[in-house]
Amino acid sequence: MAAMPGKRMLRALSGERLDKPPFWLMRQAGRYLPEYREIRSQAGGFLDLCFSPKLACEVTLQPIRRYGMDAAILFSDILIVPHGLGQKVAFKEGEGPVLNPVRSASDLGQLSLDGFHERVAPVYETVSRIAEALPKETTLIGFAGSPWTVATYMAEGGGSKEFVAVKRWAYGDPEGFGQLIDMLVEATISYLSRQVEAGAEVLQLFDSWAGVLPEPGFRRWCIEPTRRIVGALKAKHPGVPIIGFPRGAGTLYAAYAAETGVDAVSLDTAVPVAWAAETLQTTLPVQGNLDPILLVAGGEALDREIDRILNGFSGGPHVFNLGHGVTQTTPPEIVDRLARRLRAGG
Amino acid sequence: MAAMPGKRMLRALSGERLDKPPFWLMRQAGRYLPEYREIRSQAGGFLDLCFSPKLACEVTLQPIRRYGMDAAILFSDILIVPHGLGQKVAFKEGEGPVLNPVRSASDLGQLSLDGFHERVAPVYETVSRIAEALPKETTLIGFAGSPWTVATYMAEGGGSKEFVAVKRWAYGDPEGFGQLIDMLVEATISYLSRQVEAGAEVLQLFDSWAGVLPEPGFRRWCIEPTRRIVGALKAKHPGVPIIGFPRGAGTLYAAYAAETGVDAVSLDTAVPVAWAAETLQTTLPVQGNLDPILLVAGGEALDREIDRILNGFSGGPHVFNLGHGVTQTTPPEIVDRLARRLRAGG
Repeated sequence: MAAMPGKRMLRALSGERLDKPPFWLMRQAGRYLPEYREIRSQAGGFLDLCFSPKLACEVTLQPIRRYGMDAAILFSDILIVPHGLGQKVAFKEGEGPVLNPVRSASDLGQLSLDGFHERVAPVYETVSRIAEALPKETTLIGFAGSPWTVATYMAEGGGSKEFVAVKRWAYGDPEGFGQLIDMLVEATISYLSRQVEAGAEVLQLFDSWAGVLPEPGFRRWCIEPTRRIVGALKAKHPGVPIIGFPRGAGTLYAAYAAETGVDAVSLDTAVPVAWAAETLQTTLPVQGNLDPILLVAGGEALDREIDRILNGFSGGPHVFNLGHGVTQTTPPEIVDRLARRLRAGG
Repeated sequence: MAAMPGKRMLRALSGERLDKPPFWLMRQAGRYLPEYREIRSQAGGFLDLCFSPKLACEVTLQPIRRYGMDAAILFSDILIVPHGLGQKVAFKEGEGPVLNPVRSASDLGQLSLDGFHERVAPVYETVSRIAEALPKETTLIGFAGSPWTVATYMAEGGGSKEFVAVKRWAYGDPEGFGQLIDMLVEATISYLSRQVEAGAEVLQLFDSWAGVLPEPGFRRWCIEPTRRIVGALKAKHPGVPIIGFPRGAGTLYAAYAAETGVDAVSLDTAVPVAWAAETLQTTLPVQGNLDPILLVAGGEALDREIDRILNGFSGGPHVFNLGHGVTQTTPPEIVDRLARRLRAGG
């Protein structure tokens, strides 16, 4: 394919193979950066930071200034959607999120799409501010959690290891649980659509807990709702690429890529590069999938893995990224080493 | 294949397709059973229970009495091996295991294979007792953790979400980390060999954290050490089948099944049945893979999933099991429902 004008991230997502793939890093804005910790300490709670357009814009830009990634991702959280639906969401320092759980169809009465946009309005303002402030070559990514993953937090009341509450509901009352999923599908379409109207040029759907379901559940609660979201967004905003991230999907990455309508898939660390190049990248762009702990380890192991991933995906469209988010103990100078190599083309 | 005499579990593991597949459940002895909680409360700490041949034998037998599984698995823990190597291991109520971490080659001086068997001797006595006490149709499974998974606990000092310490070591100093893996390979061979001599008829290797590594790490730290363990055990005890459980391996289940020499693979919940039947079961028996949370949910969803798994694996050798261990809140009567169906053949 001949080189096209335009932002490198958008070119890769449109299917162009670039000699130097664009890159960004999941959770590139965050605690590993001293300038983030500085802002974070001014902001009060984590939700206050997400809901301060000025500060959320600032932390979104921080990694771009340091490392010149090809894309910036809105600084926010996947639990903004339950908050927007009226569920009580709190972030406790060092403990992760705590939600007042919803575990049955009758609990859904506490939630509502009415007033959703008012409750999350600062996020849209943050998107506008970032869109204005970004360098012209940098792409702005908006995002949301996928319905299944968001539902796990809503039903468990926070993070989980075994997913007993959400699965008990989904398995025991699939129709009632389906009402929650329907509500999340609708909210997510509307939420992401507004992000696009505010300036997001690409969208990513994070299905972080896609990998804990057996195949029928994966098809029903991950693929199907994603397909509906992607369909509705494509109807409204046909030019905006959507990246899907069904983390842990294993062999079912193939079904997800073929059936949801996403424009690209983001690969977790465990997905073998050769398999993905052959099975996925022949039909759509892939994003990934360096182990984030290599940004803690650094050294030769990091260099070797960068080479392996660049080489393995060099035959088709590729966005270089991690297989999971940057971790908190990452030394910023190792991220710099990665960024220098990627900007130089490997 | 014509019906052969002998225990149903051993027949399935030798490659025979049985109309009624044998079954057992990972973590079938445990907290969900009131009779287990009763013994547990007498035993002092969790390690005291593992090291009491009388009590460990008793809790191993409890689920067999209730449900008539085709196999009993030694009641023990994968952290018995680090304990045997001299690492300090404690189980804190409600917190999981706590180990004094080893994080570099120089820390390995604290560990030693000398005295290993003395430190874990009660386990061998437990195996002998179970072997004597089991009904004649029931197969006794011995087990150990796989080196990678055991190493994660040894380096992290307990459970982990991100595996920063163990990966930093493995990536940053693969030779030093390789010394730990070598020590674990040797200890595991010797430990499992003694279990066979005490009466174990089948062995299972649990690689619970196989799914957190990129492919090169999976090959080096999961496949390769497993291959060495299997090779040595096959040389000593050629008639004893070995089941490998590389949880979360995704598409790499195929490489694991082809390259380690295991006789059968245990499948996690996310492995699609049709994929496994086509890719794995055509070359070796498969075990699995009901979502354990269906034993909390029960009802139609459970029945449907039992049918789906039985049908999907009906074309070849299959051991019915879960995709992960029985969870603590499982109602014993739902396990009874599963067991009745499986004993009746579906």
